Amino acid sequence: MPDLDSVVREISEEMAARADRGAVADYIPELAHVDPGRFGLAVIDADGRLSAGGDSETLFSIQSISKVFTLTLALGMVGDRLWKRVGREPSGNPFNSIVQLERERGVPRNPFINAGAIAVTDVILSGHEPREALGEILRFMQFLAQDQTITIDATVAASEKRTGFRNTALANYMRSFGVIENPVDYTLGVYFHHCAIAMTCRQLAAAGRFLAHNGRNPSTGHSVVSPERARRINAIMLTCGHYDGSGEFAYRVGLPGKSGVGGGILAVAPGRASIAVWSPGLDEAGNSHLGRIALERLTQRMGWSVFGA
Amino acid sequence: MPDLDSVVREISEEMAARADRGAVADYIPELAHVDPGRFGLAVIDADGRLSAGGDSETLFSIQSISKVFTLTLALGMVGDRLWKRVGREPSGNPFNSIVQLERERGVPRNPFINAGAIAVTDVILSGHEPREALGEILRFMQFLAQDQTITIDATVAASEKRTGFRNTALANYMRSFGVIENPVDYTLGVYFHHCAIAMTCRQLAAAGRFLAHNGRNPSTGHSVVSPERARRINAIMLTCGHYDGSGEFAYRVGLPGKSGVGGGILAVAPGRASIAVWSPGLDEAGNSHLGRIALERLTQRMGWSVFGA
Amino acid sequence: MPDLDSVVREISEEMAARADRGAVADYIPELAHVDPGRFGLAVIDADGRLSAGGDSETLFSIQSISKVFTLTLALGMVGDRLWKRVGREPSGNPFNSIVQLERERGVPRNPFINAGAIAVTDVILSGHEPREALGEILRFMQFLAQDQTITIDATVAASEKRTGFRNTALANYMRSFGVIENPVDYTLGVYFHHCAIAMTCRQLAAAGRFLAHNGRNPSTGHSVVSPERARRINAIMLTCGHYDGSGEFAYRVGLPGKSGVGGGILAVAPGRASIAVWSPGLDEAGNSHLGRIALERLTQRMGWSVFGA
Amino acid sequence: MPDLDSVVREISEEMAARADRGAVADYIPELAHVDPGRFGLAVIDADGRLSAGGDSETLFSIQSISKVFTLTLALGMVGDRLWKRVGREPSGNPFNSIVQLERERGVPRNPFINAGAIAVTDVILSGHEPREALGEILRFMQFLAQDQTITIDATVAASEKRTGFRNTALANYMRSFGVIENPVDYTLGVYFHHCAIAMTCRQLAAAGRFLAHNGRNPSTGHSVVSPERARRINAIMLTCGHYDGSGEFAYRVGLPGKSGVGGGILAVAPGRASIAVWSPGLDEAGNSHLGRIALERLTQRMGWSVFGA
Repeated sequence: MPDLDSVVREISEEMAARADRGAVADYIPELAHVDPGRFGLAVIDADGRLSAGGDSETLFSIQSISKVFTLTLALGMVGDRLWKRVGREPSGNPFNSIVQLERERGVPRNPFINAGAIAVTDVILSGHEPREALGEILRFMQFLAQDQTITIDATVAASEKRTGFRNTALANYMRSFGVIENPVDYTLGVYFHHCAIAMTCRQLAAAGRFLAHNGRNPSTGHSVVSPERARRINAIMLTCGHYDGSGEFAYRVGLPGKSGVGGGILAVAPGRASIAVWSPGLDEAGNSHLGRIALERLTQRMGWSVFGA
Repeated sequence: MPDLDSVVREISEEMAARADRGAVADYIPELAHVDPGRFGLAVIDADGRLSAGGDSETLFSIQSISKVFTLTLALGMVGDRLWKRVGREPSGNPFNSIVQLERERGVPRNPFINAGAIAVTDVILSGHEPREALGEILRFMQFLAQDQTITIDATVAASEKRTGFRNTALANYMRSFGVIENPVDYTLGVYFHHCAIAMTCRQLAAAGRFLAHNGRNPSTGHSVVSPERARRINAIMLTCGHYDGSGEFAYRVGLPGKSGVGGGILAVAPGRASIAVWSPGLDEAGNSHLGRIALERLTQRMGWSVFGA
Repeated sequence: MPDLDSVVREISEEMAARADRGAVADYIPELAHVDPGRFGLAVIDADGRLSAGGDSETLFSIQSISKVFTLTLALGMVGDRLWKRVGREPSGNPFNSIVQLERERGVPRNPFINAGAIAVTDVILSGHEPREALGEILRFMQFLAQDQTITIDATVAASEKRTGFRNTALANYMRSFGVIENPVDYTLGVYFHHCAIAMTCRQLAAAGRFLAHNGRNPSTGHSVVSPERARRINAIMLTCGHYDGSGEFAYRVGLPGKSGVGGGILAVAPGRASIAVWSPGLDEAGNSHLGRIALERLTQRMGWSVFGA
Repeated sequence: MPDLDSVVREISEEMAARADRGAVADYIPELAHVDPGRFGLAVIDADGRLSAGGDSETLFSIQSISKVFTLTLALGMVGDRLWKRVGREPSGNPFNSIVQLERERGVPRNPFINAGAIAVTDVILSGHEPREALGEILRFMQFLAQDQTITIDATVAASEKRTGFRNTALANYMRSFGVIENPVDYTLGVYFHHCAIAMTCRQLAAAGRFLAHNGRNPSTGHSVVSPERARRINAIMLTCGHYDGSGEFAYRVGLPGKSGVGGGILAVAPGRASIAVWSPGLDEAGNSHLGRIALERLTQRMGWSVFGA
């Protein structure tokens, strides 16, 4: 097997040099200012060893990657009852589509499209003040990454709140079917804020380690979820983690992964490593263009695809 | 690790005893006669050892499972040019939906829904007589399973031809966009016949071995496809192999798999085993009810999920 | 020709006696309290003579019938520029569908479905305070009906505001495409209030007279719109005035008409009469059940269908 | 009122001179050869007087205009039982859309979209040989127009049969739901042939006279349908006669009408006149571009809109 440090370094150098970088998301004004030239990669193996390259220590907005952690948290709170409020099938539609909601009476297809993540946030919020629910999500991220410095970028949250008309539409639409139970403003407030958590590639890779190792962080020994639940979250990441580009990601990369419009991707190589990559330019389906290419290189060279050595 | 023979035996006994068996497909009249009480399971490990239980030696109609093999064959013929005629994203719709075709100008979402498999069949047919194309598909199955006795059940093919109005609609619809190039009757003739191939669980598990072992049958040493192509076919099976129940199959079983309305499922545990299961009763999404449960048991007990040990 | 007074009296008596009355709308809580046994009918002919029967002097919530008058007002303000913000084709979908908006980039199909009427309200609001815009709409209604006593039922408006999640979704969705330009709360505030205008059948028939007489009230001599514009508003009422039951209304009644979920219908017999009917029970498409039947009787007996004597 | 002869002459001259002519249909190869410069107009008033201009004596393919006459014939055969097989609401979709069929279990929205007209043709065919059914349709046209010379253009029918994949898809799709009962080839054979009837503007205006005069041809005294049925057919023409441009036609022209992709339009001014116009260039919704403009001129100048004098 090739040396992981060398592979990470070579990929980081190749990506830094590429001219094709996709387009930075502009639907959240605050994100549109990010330099498209950035690229970071961090890989933490089963022994806890970090291999990192590029801008792996730069903070970026994790956006929809937070959906993996809110799903984990909500499953811990209500267990399989969660699946009455959200499905777990690929949607076959873009990340912010409302068409499927009308056809299926307000129940979102899966927890990784916007509507589904808003429904999951509503479950976490139930019976709490928005501030408390948000605190719980943030502390969970800090605990997973073993890093108390992780915070929310309030400017990004405010920017999305000002312009998030489509998410407001989705939330009100689900509320009309009773799938959202709390005041829409509360649920969206928590949603916009957990999407605005800022992390580095290194922190994100650390936070995802429990998914790579049967629900348990092998360095701290903390058991986050059962092995079965870890496998199941990985399954949803693989089938639904990249919106209407999930099939393409599985085909090219072959790992469970979740992308965000901030340009980050968290990927999981079961038994082997937790991986975070970041490059702000997006492809047409809203996933990081260079992030996906970097992960394709990495799994090919390391033989990490779940679909064959 | 538990003993595979014991596990297969115990699962087969449990499944034979269960009362919940789903509903036998009735949209193809000939298939409606099959006894819902049947259950068969065959597992062939990396060393070529067979563990089998129940009706593993009974012939059944493989139906849509043939789509895995026609995809493999078409990729061998035209390579990545195939992807101009068919996508590789989950559809978010039932197996025979025509809605997505209208929205996306006749290009089916993936090769494992009916429309996609008809388009793949049209590629295989190009430049040949239907009889030749069908012969090629059948010889490919015989070669993969190392078994010259495999044949087509002409009664099933005729039954589907007489009643396959919806598939005829799909094919004509794609023809109107130029996605189907041959006379519709020719393409559908080949399609209905390769769906009517009859195999046993043992034969089917044997035919799928190349997908479990990087494109190569470890017993014969025959290389069928490159390792990369094997991984990619597995990826499509995982994201699209069970129609609108693909997310559920990944969530519960955690293996690439392809189902057929005859009640069979082919599943692939990369590096470990090729698995075929058969039970004719279907769930709401059109996938074998007990077949899926049996595979869930098997992967749990053997620790074979691709998403974690 | 039969005597109009007798016809109106006989229809009113028949409707009062019928047991099939449809179901009172319950999605706006305040409307659910209305007695389903009520029925009123008022017809004003070209000479200004009133023929009335049943509860023709009882106030009811005009709801979507207000859309005819806001359309008239908005056309007066911006003319044909209005058609950049809303279409004029039947939608083929229920009154509150959001599917079509996604497919057509936030531009509603016509001004008589909820989304379209919200867009029209947004046009009227532009550059004004909500209170001013609402005052203008109310004064327009009072002017048309020549009745200063017409007011808004604030309880109904508040009830809809509290529960109007689906309209809030529609408005935010259009806002995300830029089709709504004002703050969503402002536009919806005006919309919910003009839907809550309370009128009697007599007042409503009076308000609609300009549409029956080439844009001009023949009693007052006031010219409200040009003859061409009156014809065109009538045309939109005929093709789009009853949501997904517009074809049925044209087929059975044969007059331009607009229904509201309060159970009212305004119908226009060009050159002959302005007609208002009210019965709170609705059919499946959300239109007054007895109201439609009463209008069918009326046009048959008077020979008023626009499609033949 | 202006002189009809002068109005018809002036409109014909204006249309002959216009440069904007739309695009000739190319999806039926045989129709693509027609000269886009042609324009014809024929109006027959209540007294049977003909006013004609331009190429009013040139044969053209009536295409979907035949749907008005097959609807009339089918209603005569099975009465209101027809409405179990087809609806009467605008579709909100293009003429050849299949999406609505999937959502509504194979029942077409109305008899004037392709799917609906194929279902109506299937009703006419029931219990007959295709040749007999077609003979009946042709004789009905000859009777209505009082002209035995009317025939079918077999070349156009054959051209459409060779290329009508989308209609074949629609028919097979409805067959899968049992909405089509005869062999698909038979039903389509009759459908393609009645669409290929060739007529002049004068013949077509003559054939449509019963719809303008309460179901009865005032010159021959033949009663074709009851007054109620004539009104109802006119209502469906107004709401559904121009596919997804029906609202626009009602808005601009204000008459019941039915268009065909051959460039013809039949329009009905109840109590006043039957009108046929022909110009082969089509607009985006598939309706004759100059035909619609000519009718808009005609109704404005004659004051014939059903929506006001």
